[in-house]
Amino acid sequence: MADIDSRIEAADRIGVTTGPIRGSRKVHVASPTGSGIRVAMREIDLDPHSNEPSVRVYDTSGPYTDPNARIDIGQGLPELRAAWIRARGDVEEVTQREVRPEDNGQLGPDRSGGVPAFPNVRKTVLRAKPGQNVSQMHYARRGIITPEMEYVATRENLGRERLAEYIRDGQDWGASIPDYVTPEFVREEVARGRAIIPSNINHPESEPMAIGRNFLVKINANIGNSAVASDVASEVDKMVWSIRWGADTVMDLSTGRNIHDTREWIIRNSPVPIGTVPIYQALEKVGGIAEELSWEIFRDTLIEQAEQGVDYFTIHAGVRLPYVPLAAKRVTGIVSRGGSIMAKWCLAHHRESFLYERFDEITEIMKAYDIAYSLGDGLRPGSIADANDEAQFAELYTLGELTKRAWEQDVQVMIEGPGHVPMHKIKENMDKQLAACGEAPFYTLGPLTTDIAPGYDHITSGIGAAMIGWYGTAMLCYVTPKEHLGLPDRDDVKVGVVTYKLAAHAADLAKGHPAAKVRDDALSKARFEFRWRDQFNLSLDPDTAEQYHDQTLPAEGAKTAHFCSMCGPKFCSMKISQEVREFAKLQNQDSAGFIAAEEAEKGMAEMSQVYEDTGRELYMGAGGREHD
Amino acid sequence: MADIDSRIEAADRIGVTTGPIRGSRKVHVASPTGSGIRVAMREIDLDPHSNEPSVRVYDTSGPYTDPNARIDIGQGLPELRAAWIRARGDVEEVTQREVRPEDNGQLGPDRSGGVPAFPNVRKTVLRAKPGQNVSQMHYARRGIITPEMEYVATRENLGRERLAEYIRDGQDWGASIPDYVTPEFVREEVARGRAIIPSNINHPESEPMAIGRNFLVKINANIGNSAVASDVASEVDKMVWSIRWGADTVMDLSTGRNIHDTREWIIRNSPVPIGTVPIYQALEKVGGIAEELSWEIFRDTLIEQAEQGVDYFTIHAGVRLPYVPLAAKRVTGIVSRGGSIMAKWCLAHHRESFLYERFDEITEIMKAYDIAYSLGDGLRPGSIADANDEAQFAELYTLGELTKRAWEQDVQVMIEGPGHVPMHKIKENMDKQLAACGEAPFYTLGPLTTDIAPGYDHITSGIGAAMIGWYGTAMLCYVTPKEHLGLPDRDDVKVGVVTYKLAAHAADLAKGHPAAKVRDDALSKARFEFRWRDQFNLSLDPDTAEQYHDQTLPAEGAKTAHFCSMCGPKFCSMKISQEVREFAKLQNQDSAGFIAAEEAEKGMAEMSQVYEDTGRELYMGAGGREHD
Repeated sequence: MADIDSRIEAADRIGVTTGPIRGSRKVHVASPTGSGIRVAMREIDLDPHSNEPSVRVYDTSGPYTDPNARIDIGQGLPELRAAWIRARGDVEEVTQREVRPEDNGQLGPDRSGGVPAFPNVRKTVLRAKPGQNVSQMHYARRGIITPEMEYVATRENLGRERLAEYIRDGQDWGASIPDYVTPEFVREEVARGRAIIPSNINHPESEPMAIGRNFLVKINANIGNSAVASDVASEVDKMVWSIRWGADTVMDLSTGRNIHDTREWIIRNSPVPIGTVPIYQALEKVGGIAEELSWEIFRDTLIEQAEQGVDYFTIHAGVRLPYVPLAAKRVTGIVSRGGSIMAKWCLAHHRESFLYERFDEITEIMKAYDIAYSLGDGLRPGSIADANDEAQFAELYTLGELTKRAWEQDVQVMIEGPGHVPMHKIKENMDKQLAACGEAPFYTLGPLTTDIAPGYDHITSGIGAAMIGWYGTAMLCYVTPKEHLGLPDRDDVKVGVVTYKLAAHAADLAKGHPAAKVRDDALSKARFEFRWRDQFNLSLDPDTAEQYHDQTLPAEGAKTAHFCSMCGPKFCSMKISQEVREFAKLQNQDSAGFIAAEEAEKGMAEMSQVYEDTGRELYMGAGGREHD
Repeated sequence: MADIDSRIEAADRIGVTTGPIRGSRKVHVASPTGSGIRVAMREIDLDPHSNEPSVRVYDTSGPYTDPNARIDIGQGLPELRAAWIRARGDVEEVTQREVRPEDNGQLGPDRSGGVPAFPNVRKTVLRAKPGQNVSQMHYARRGIITPEMEYVATRENLGRERLAEYIRDGQDWGASIPDYVTPEFVREEVARGRAIIPSNINHPESEPMAIGRNFLVKINANIGNSAVASDVASEVDKMVWSIRWGADTVMDLSTGRNIHDTREWIIRNSPVPIGTVPIYQALEKVGGIAEELSWEIFRDTLIEQAEQGVDYFTIHAGVRLPYVPLAAKRVTGIVSRGGSIMAKWCLAHHRESFLYERFDEITEIMKAYDIAYSLGDGLRPGSIADANDEAQFAELYTLGELTKRAWEQDVQVMIEGPGHVPMHKIKENMDKQLAACGEAPFYTLGPLTTDIAPGYDHITSGIGAAMIGWYGTAMLCYVTPKEHLGLPDRDDVKVGVVTYKLAAHAADLAKGHPAAKVRDDALSKARFEFRWRDQFNLSLDPDTAEQYHDQTLPAEGAKTAHFCSMCGPKFCSMKISQEVREFAKLQNQDSAGFIAAEEAEKGMAEMSQVYEDTGRELYMGAGGREHD
C-alpha cells in the first residue's frame, strides 16, 4: 500500500510530502458569523454527469495539500492564531529558556549526530501575564467565545447545513450531539470539561480542533525520532505524512538524542496539536536513571516544552505508590513506559509519586500556556488477562480526582485509556471513565481485542477502537501493524492512520453523527452507478483503491465501465438491480410507491410485457469471488 | 505479507502448499470414548526453559501440514469418513450422472481451455436408500451419536480438559456454551437445529466440524476459478492455502467454464466442507440468461453437485416475487448475485420464485446426501444506507419459515446474513435472526461497518464480524482487501483469512469460550518473558510476525534478547515490570498477597533497602514509538 500518487510534488526539493490528495481540492469555508475566520476543508468533486453535489470532508492535512501554499520547512507554517492570542491581552513575551546540551540528550559518551537547529527560531516566547489564565476552558467558563471555538464550530459542521432532510439514526449512549454545531455549543462543551481544544499559545500555527464526546471522533498518530536523525526533513515528514491521511493530533514520542531540536522542527511545521510525554525527556536528562528523576528536572522539562508549543502533555500522575504492587500479580505487569518509569521511581524512593504530589504546581504551568492534560494510564492492561483489573481502575479513579483538581484551575483535561481489553469488557471502561472523570474526553489506545495476532494489531485494536469510539471515546490512538514487533515504516504509518480513520468513522456513523453518513451514501451511490473514479476519490485512501482496481483492470476505459473485475461484464448484481429499478420507473411508480410487499404483486402481468419490450440481456459469469 | 516460510516443501512437485506451520506440529488426539477416532490438531511447543505447557490449537489445514502424509492431488485425500458412512447401512451405490459439456460451461463459442478431468474419478456415488434420510440431524433426532459428532466433540474441546481452574469470564448473550463438549452435547445441538455438521456422504474426505452458536466461531473463505484455469493445481492450492491459515469451510464460487471439473479436484482434495451457490452453474447451463432458468435445470445441477460431494448449498429461496420491488428504492439495490438472478427471473416471468415453490422438493434432495442448506440472503444490504430495511427483514422472515420446513424433513440449515451494517444496527440483525430462524446457525458476510474505505474492507468488515460473532453468529464469511475493487491474490486471501480468524477469536474470548483465552495468555506470558520465538509461534501468522520483527532486528540473537526494537535495550516497560515483580518476591509475598492498595503501603522502607541491594540499572530511550 505504498503511496502511488504521482501528483505528490517536489518532495525532493522541500523535503516533505505535498500536493492535493487525489481527486480533491482544498477549500476555505467562512464562518457564518462573518468574523472572517476561514476553515480549511477538503472538497471532493464528483462526476459532473452524475448531478451529485460535491462532498466536503474534514481536513487535517494543513497547507501541505494546498497547491497555493508555499511550503518551506525551514520557515515553518503561517501563524494562524497569533493575532487571536495577542488580542486577548493576557500574554507577555518572555525570553526563551536557553537550550542546554542535555535537552538534546547529549550527556552520554556519543555526542555526534546532532540535527541542525530550526533556522527561524524565536528569541522570545509567550506566557500568561502574572495571575492570568490563558486556557480555552478559562475563557469558556467566563462566557467568552474565542476564535478557536468558532473555528471548531465551522470545522465540525462540515456540510451539516445541507442536511435539512437528514433523519437522525444512531445509538449515542447518552452523548448530546447537536444537529448543528454553534460556537456557543463549543464554548459550553469546553466550559464543562466535556471537550478540549489543545492550543498552546506558543503553537500559533495550529488549526483549532476539538476532542470531545459530542464532536467527531478523532485519531492520534505517534511518531518518534529514529536512530539516525540527521535528516530532519524526514522527521518532519513523519508528521506531514500522518496528517495527510487523517491524523488529528500527533504525539512526538522521541527519546534519546536531538529531541529538543527535532521537536522544534515538528511543532513549527505542524497544523495539528502536538502531544508529548515529558517524562521521557526528563529521564534523558538524568542519564536514563529513573530514580534520579526529580521534580526540579521534570518542571524544567515542562517549561522547556511549554515554551516550544507542545499542546498536550501525557502525565502519569495516577501511578501512585500504593498501586504499584497491584501490578506485580499481572501477566504482563506495567506496559506503559511512563508508568513503569514512575513505578520504578516510587519503589526506589518508597515515596509517593512527585507527579501526584506536585500536581497543582504542574497545573499552574499548564494554565500559563494553555497546555491540556492527557492524564496517562500508566497501569493500563498489556494483555487480555490483565484487562479491567484492580490496578487499572485504581489509577482511573485517581485520574478522576486529578481531573477535578485541574478543572479547579480551569485547565483542560483528557484521560488516557487501555490497552488490551476483550470486547465484553470494553464498555465497562467507558462507563467507569465517564463516571469517574466527569465526562472529560477519553483518549484510548485501541483497545486490542485479542493478543494472538501480532502483525495484525492495527486490526485487533481497530475493532476495539471502533467500539469504544461508538460508546463515547473522543480520540483513538492508532496502532500500526508493527505494534509489539518493530518500528513502523511509512507504509505502516499510513495503514495505521487509515485503519483508525475508518474505525473513528464507523463510530461516528453508529453514534448517529449527522455529518458522517453523507460520505458513505455518496460512495455507495457512486458504486451503484459504476462511477469508479468517484468511488476512489471518496474513499479514505484513493491511491490504494485505484491501485487495487487497476491490478485486475488496468485500462483507463475500465474506470467508466459498468462492471468490475469481480463478477465480470455480464454477471453483475448492481447492473441487474438497476434493471429492477428501471422496471419500477416504467410502471410510473416512483420509488416511494414500492412499499408494501402485498401491493407489489399487482400489475405483474403488465410488467412482463414491458420486460419483453425493453429487451433481455445476456449476463455470464467471469471468475467472481463475491459471496454469492 | 507474502509467505516467507522456507519450510513449505516441494510445492513445485505436488502443486500445492505443504509442510508444517512454523513452530508447530500435527498431533492426533484420541477421542476419550475409546472409539478409536483420532482428531487432528496442531501443537505449539514452547521454549523448554520456560516450563510452560505446549498449546494445542484448532487445526483446519488437513494432511497438508502433516509431514507424514503423502500428498498427491491426482489421488485425493484419504476417505476418513467412508467406513462410518457405509456402516450406517442406509446408503446405496448408484451410477454417477454423466458429465455433460454444459456442466463445464462449454456452451459458448469458445470451447478451449478445459482443465483435465480428475484422474481418480469414481464411477459410482452414494445416495440414501429409498425412503432413508442420511442427514446428521436425522440421526441426532433419533438419539444416535455419529462418529462425526464424536469427532466434533473432541475437536471443539481442544485442551479444555486442562482448564480445571478456569473461571468463566464472558458475556454470551444467551448462548449455552458448555465447560466441556461431550458427543451427547453435539448430538443435542444438531438435533435442535442449533448446530450443523456439513457432511455430504459423497465427501468422505472431510474432517467433521460444527457450525453453531455454542461452538467456536468459524470462518469461511471464498475461492473461484480464474480466467485462465488450465493450471488445476493452482485452483486446488487456493483451497489448501485458505485452510492453512484457518478457513473452516471453503466456498467454490466459480462461474464460467470448467466449473464441474475444477470442483471435482477441489472436493477430492478438501478436508473442510465445501459450499457452492448452485444457481451460478445452472445459469451457465442456460447461456447466462436468467429468465431461461427452470426448475428442471436447477434440479439437475443440484444432483450433479450433490453427487460430487458439495457439503452445503446456498439457496436464495427467500427472494420472493413480492419483495423484489422493495429493493427498487434502495441506494444500492440488490448486491447478491444469486439474489439478483432470482429477482430478474421473478420479474421476467412475474411468477413466484421456483426455489421458494419447490423448496420441499429441494429438501428431498438435500436429505438423500446430507447436504446442509445455507439459506442465502439475496436481499442483504449493500450499503450503510440500506441496512436493516424492509426488503432485508422480509426475506429473513421467509428464511425462518423455510428453516422450519427444512427441519420438518430433518435437513440441516444455516442462515446467511448481511452485508453492510453500521455498528448500532448489528445486534438487531442477530436478535431478529435468532427469533425468526429458531436459533439456526447464522452465517454472516462481515458486516462492513462503513462504506468509505475500499481497499480496507477486510477491516471495515472485520469490526462488524467480531461484534456479530460475539452476539452469536456461528460462522463469518471473510472479506479480502480487494473487496469491491478486484480479484484477491494469494496475499489478499491470507490477509482476509487471518483477519477473520482474529475476529472469530475475539468473539470467542468475549463470549467466554473456555478454550479461547489459553492462547492469549500463553502469548502474553511469552511477550512478558521476552520469548520472541514463542510469541511468533503462538500467533495466527508466525511468518509475518517474525518477518516484521526481523525488519528492525534481524540478528538471530535478538530472538532471545530481553528487549525489542520499539523501546530499545534499556527503556523497556516489560523489563521494569519484571523488576517490580522481583521486588515482590524478595518481600516473601506471593503475588496473591498484593491485593489491597491500602496494605501495599506497608513495608515501603524495607523495600527501599532491598532495591539498593539488588542494584540499579540504566535504561535509556532508543527510538521508541509505543504510546507512552
